[in-house]
Amino acid sequence: MSDVADASTPQRVCFLMQVKSERVAEYLTVHEDIWPDMLEALRETGWTNFSLFLRRRDGLVVGYVETADYALATSAMARREVNTRWQRTMAEYFVEGRPDEDVDVLEEYFHLP
Amino acid sequence: MSDVADASTPQRVCFLMQVKSERVAEYLTVHEDIWPDMLEALRETGWTNFSLFLRRRDGLVVGYVETADYALATSAMARREVNTRWQRTMAEYFVEGRPDEDVDVLEEYFHLP
Repeated sequence: MSDVADASTPQRVCFLMQVKSERVAEYLTVHEDIWPDMLEALRETGWTNFSLFLRRRDGLVVGYVETADYALATSAMARREVNTRWQRTMAEYFVEGRPDEDVDVLEEYFHLP
Repeated sequence: MSDVADASTPQRVCFLMQVKSERVAEYLTVHEDIWPDMLEALRETGWTNFSLFLRRRDGLVVGYVETADYALATSAMARREVNTRWQRTMAEYFVEGRPDEDVDVLEEYFHLP
């Protein structure tokens, strides 16, 4: 695929998002049935070993993903029409509106293979 | 090794810790030179693909690890003498004292292989 970088040297990326604490239960329910074309777009743009974790008491979300080039993977997703629709649907659950446009990316300082 | 679970079905675990914001720089320096016997103990007790990420502005730490059985991996580490020494050295950097005894484990609600 033309919008995917070489996968031989993956980056490990961790990012944070904030779900509205009063919408957590509903937000989880939506994630039991993610659109197949959204999953396919993630796969096609190089998102691998991608997990989302939640701190239920306050809605803090941690994302972890392995990808060849995170900047490329996010910009490739941003160009997908299904992502625009998905993020629009998700916006109401997040404190900051569209989470894909304003995530807090952390700095990896330790890794043990 | 007797204290390691079967690695065929790994768990993905995400946990949070809080470094004192005024000690972040020093805490990072310590992690440039982690004791080799501490790394060896982690490997021997089943900690794989283990990353630590930092939000530098406030010292929030996110840990991500893949292991066959997180409860087993943590209890096996707790029995290692090198871990006791390491955690004692780390305690001064953390808001809650010894971080290995009081981490905030999150709930995985999404995974894309």
